[in-house]
Amino acid sequence: MESLFEQLKDYSESGIYPCHMPGHKRHGMGALPEPLAELDITEVEGFDNLHQPEGILQELQRYAASAYGAEETYYLVGGSTCGILSAVSAAIPRGGRLLIARNCHKSIYHAAYIRQLQLSYLYPELLSGVDICEAITARQVQEALEREQDIQGVLIVSPTYEGRIAEVEEIARIVHGFGIPLIVDEAHGAHLGFHPAFAQGSSRAGADLVVTSVHKTLPAMTQTALLHANGPLVDRRLLRRFLRIYQSSSPSYVLMASIDNAIHLAQEEGHRLFQRMLENWNRMLEQLSVCKVLTIWPSMSLERAEYQRHQDIGKLIISVRNTGITGQELYRELLEKYGLQMEMACGSYVLAMFTVGDERPGYERLTNALLELDSLMLRTGARGTKLAEAGEMKQAEDSGISQAVADGTKRIETDTAWETVHTCLRHRKSIALSECWDRPVEWIALKDAVGRYAGEFVNIYPPGTPILVPGERLEETDRQLIERYLEAGLKVQGITGQDGEPGLAVLTEPMK
Amino acid sequence: MESLFEQLKDYSESGIYPCHMPGHKRHGMGALPEPLAELDITEVEGFDNLHQPEGILQELQRYAASAYGAEETYYLVGGSTCGILSAVSAAIPRGGRLLIARNCHKSIYHAAYIRQLQLSYLYPELLSGVDICEAITARQVQEALEREQDIQGVLIVSPTYEGRIAEVEEIARIVHGFGIPLIVDEAHGAHLGFHPAFAQGSSRAGADLVVTSVHKTLPAMTQTALLHANGPLVDRRLLRRFLRIYQSSSPSYVLMASIDNAIHLAQEEGHRLFQRMLENWNRMLEQLSVCKVLTIWPSMSLERAEYQRHQDIGKLIISVRNTGITGQELYRELLEKYGLQMEMACGSYVLAMFTVGDERPGYERLTNALLELDSLMLRTGARGTKLAEAGEMKQAEDSGISQAVADGTKRIETDTAWETVHTCLRHRKSIALSECWDRPVEWIALKDAVGRYAGEFVNIYPPGTPILVPGERLEETDRQLIERYLEAGLKVQGITGQDGEPGLAVLTEPMK
Repeated sequence: MESLFEQLKDYSESGIYPCHMPGHKRHGMGALPEPLAELDITEVEGFDNLHQPEGILQELQRYAASAYGAEETYYLVGGSTCGILSAVSAAIPRGGRLLIARNCHKSIYHAAYIRQLQLSYLYPELLSGVDICEAITARQVQEALEREQDIQGVLIVSPTYEGRIAEVEEIARIVHGFGIPLIVDEAHGAHLGFHPAFAQGSSRAGADLVVTSVHKTLPAMTQTALLHANGPLVDRRLLRRFLRIYQSSSPSYVLMASIDNAIHLAQEEGHRLFQRMLENWNRMLEQLSVCKVLTIWPSMSLERAEYQRHQDIGKLIISVRNTGITGQELYRELLEKYGLQMEMACGSYVLAMFTVGDERPGYERLTNALLELDSLMLRTGARGTKLAEAGEMKQAEDSGISQAVADGTKRIETDTAWETVHTCLRHRKSIALSECWDRPVEWIALKDAVGRYAGEFVNIYPPGTPILVPGERLEETDRQLIERYLEAGLKVQGITGQDGEPGLAVLTEPMK
Repeated sequence: MESLFEQLKDYSESGIYPCHMPGHKRHGMGALPEPLAELDITEVEGFDNLHQPEGILQELQRYAASAYGAEETYYLVGGSTCGILSAVSAAIPRGGRLLIARNCHKSIYHAAYIRQLQLSYLYPELLSGVDICEAITARQVQEALEREQDIQGVLIVSPTYEGRIAEVEEIARIVHGFGIPLIVDEAHGAHLGFHPAFAQGSSRAGADLVVTSVHKTLPAMTQTALLHANGPLVDRRLLRRFLRIYQSSSPSYVLMASIDNAIHLAQEEGHRLFQRMLENWNRMLEQLSVCKVLTIWPSMSLERAEYQRHQDIGKLIISVRNTGITGQELYRELLEKYGLQMEMACGSYVLAMFTVGDERPGYERLTNALLELDSLMLRTGARGTKLAEAGEMKQAEDSGISQAVADGTKRIETDTAWETVHTCLRHRKSIALSECWDRPVEWIALKDAVGRYAGEFVNIYPPGTPILVPGERLEETDRQLIERYLEAGLKVQGITGQDGEPGLAVLTEPMK
C-alpha cells in the first residue's frame, strides 16, 4: 500500500479542484510554504509556552484579539472542537442547563455529556425555497429564556455550515439581560469583519465566548482555531484551565505559525483579497442565475445588505429539488466528470465552498460544470421540468446524470422537498445527555427500531449535526429519512450493519 | 514583530542543536519533506474519516497495531494528551477510583478531574545516586491493590520522562488478577520493541491501554500519538466515543501522514537505524565516563541487560550535584556557549534527549561540551571537588560557569542532594480532585502559604509532574523547594506574581 503521504501527494497532483475546506485550497497562501520538519519544534528557549504564554505566543494572541475586536484570544491547535469543549465547560457549571440550537455541531453535545449538562433546544426554521436551516433568531432566544428560568448560558451557531448569519448583537443583548453568557460557534466565520461586505464577527457583536476555525474560511492548516473571550460573565481562570485540559501539552508550532500567518494576511491584505473574492463570487452567481433545473442559493436577487445581515459569502448551495436526482448523484457527477470535489452532499443539495484561497479559474470551473449539467438535465427532461411533463425524456450516453434521470426505477422522490436534517429537528423533549448516553444498549435493525430510544448519535458528516441524540425516540419519519440517506449512498454515522442489515444501538430500557 | 513562521525559520538556521523533542530533530527523516499546504486536506473522497475509519485510515491503524503487537490502534492528532483523556475516561466509570503514579503527567490529573475520579497514589522511589524517580514496581502495585479494594484501574508511566522502565508484564499480571485494567502512559516509548536493546512495548507486555507519543522518540511531527487497546477489560465502544469527544472533528492529514511515515520507518528500517543510534549512544557514554565533576546517568557501568529491563536509551541525565552550580546554569551555559538546546533543566540536573533522528556529530557536540565544562569546573574548583576543598578556586573570564562557581554569594546549596520533584512526592492524603479544584480560591504570597491548601496545580514544565495538586496542603519544604526553583530561574507553573511577590491560588476554606 502507498503511504498516506504518497496518496496525499498523488491527490494534490490529480487536478481535482477543492470546493471545500481548508481555506488555503491546497496552494499555500498564508499557510506554510517551507519544508516542514525544520519548523517543528517544542517549547525551546525563546518560543514561549502556549499553556502559560508570556512571550511571542502572548504577543500573537494579543494581535489576534485586536484583529477580531476581542478582549482576549487563545490559539487552538485541536480545532474548534477543543474550543467548544473549553467554552462550554467554563461557562456552565457541572450539571447546569445550557440552551443550544438543536442543529449545532456534535462537539457541543460532547461538552454537555462531559459536564453532565441539561440541554434545552432552540429549533431553527427552514429557509423557504432551500432545504437549509435558518439561523436562530433573537425572538426565539427571548422566548426560550422567558420560558425556562434556570438556563445558565446560550450557545448558537453563526454563520451556520450553510452560511446563515444570526442577529448576534441583538441576541447578546437579550442573553445578557438574563445575566448569562452567550457562546457563539463561529467555526465558519474567521473571515468576518475583514471586509465591509461581510457581517461583523461575534466578538464585536458582544458575544462572551466565540470559537472560530481558522482553517475553514482563512488560509490556514486544518485543525487550527481561535477562542475569543469578552466581558465579565465567564471566569477566565476556569477558561484557561479547560484549555489546558483539552489541548495537547505538546502543541504544534507549525499549526500555531499557520494561525499567525492567516490572521496577519487577513488583517493586512484582507480588504484587497476579499474584494477580489467578492467579485469572483458575484460573477459566478450572475452566470448561474440562468439555471433552469438546478436551484442556486444564494441567488443574485439578494440585496447586498441581505448578505451582510443574514447570508455569508462563500457557501454555494446547489439544490437538486425537482430534478429527479439526489444531491449525492450530483456530487459524484461533479467529482468524476468535472474533477470538482464538493464540501458536502446531502439528500437534496450539494454545498460548494469558496474562500479567499480560490482564484477565478476555480469559480469558472464550477460555473461551467453547473451550466452544462443544468442544460443537459433540461434537454434530457429532468423530472419537474417542462420536458419531463411532456414526456420527452431523453438519454445522453456519456452522462451519469442523464442516465440517473432516465432510470425511473432507481429514482428517489425529490419532487417534494427532501427531508433534510431540518425536518428531523422537529421538537423533541430536552434530555440529560450524560444520563442517556451511559445506559446499556443493544443493536437493532433499522426496520424494527421505530419507538426505541437512540443509544448513540446518528448523523451525516459533514456537517455532523445530529439527526438523533442518545435518549431521543426514533420516529417513523426518522427511519424513512435514514433509509433514504443510505439509499442515496450517504455515510450515516451511528448506523452499523449486521449481515448486511443496517441498524443502530438503542437503549435496552425505555426512557421514563 | 517578525511572524512566528519567520522566527521559526531563523531558529532553524541558528545552528542550535536540538537535544530535545521532537524525535525528527528538525531534519525531517520520516517527517514530511514536501511543501505542506498541498497535502493538507479535509475528509475528501477516498481519504476516509478518522472518527469512523473504513478505508485507508483503518488500514494504517491496523498496520500500527501489528507493528506494536496491539489488538487495535488509534491514530491521535491531539498528542498523548487526548489519548490519556480517552483511556482514563473509557476505563474508569465516572466517580470511580484510579490508582496512579503520583509523578504522572498532568493530563492524567485532568482526566480524573473531568470524570470526578477518586485518586489513589503510588509513590516512586528515588533512584540512588541521581535525583530522578524510579519506575513503579510490581510490588508497590500489589500492595496498593491489596490495601484498597475499591480501585477500578491502574495507571503507570513507562518509560518515565527520565527513561526508567517499569516491569509492565508483571504489573499487568497483578492488575489483571484483580480483574481491572492497566493503562500505561508510554508517551516516551514509541521506539520500544524495534530493536533488541530496547524493552518490549507495553502492549506486548499485556497492558490494556497504552498511550504513545510518536513525536517524542520517533521522527514524527509534534502532537502525533497512538492509543493501543488490548483485552476485554475496557469497552471499545466507550473508548471510541471518548476519542471522538476529545479529538478534533477536523483532524490534520498532515499529522496523520507523519504518524504513518514514522511507524513505517521504525518497522522497516528500525533495526538498522536503532543499531546506529545505539553505537553513537554507547560511544558517548564511554567518552563521558571520564567526567570528574559532572555525574552522568546512565553510566557505562550498566550491563546491557539493565538497559533492556529498567533503563531506556536516549535520555541522558547530567547531574550537577556537588558542583556548586544549578541545572539551570548548566542548561544556559550549554545553550549560550555551545548552542546545545537541552530537553529540560531542573534544580540538580539537565536532561538531553537523543533519538533515531540524531547523527554522530550531534552526540559529539554534546560530548565535547560536557568534557570541556567538566574539565573547566575541575580546574576552577567547583564546590565539592578536591580543588574547592583546598581553597584553590580560580576564575576563567570566558565562562559563566566558572564565574558562577566563584561567586559564592549567589550560590544555591547543591552539596547535598537538591530537593527534586521526588522529595515533593512524599506521601500525601489522596483527594477527590474534582471537588477540590472547583472550590473558591484566593491569591496568597508564597511566604505566607504554608499550611494552606493548593487551589491550582504547581509544577515545573517540562515535564509537568505536579509538585502540588489542588487540595494538597502546602508544607514548609514545598515552600522552600518552590523558592529554590524560582531563585534558580526555573519557570514554575501555578506560581504568579503580585507586585513582584511570588504567590499562588489557595483554597479560601480549609479542607476537612
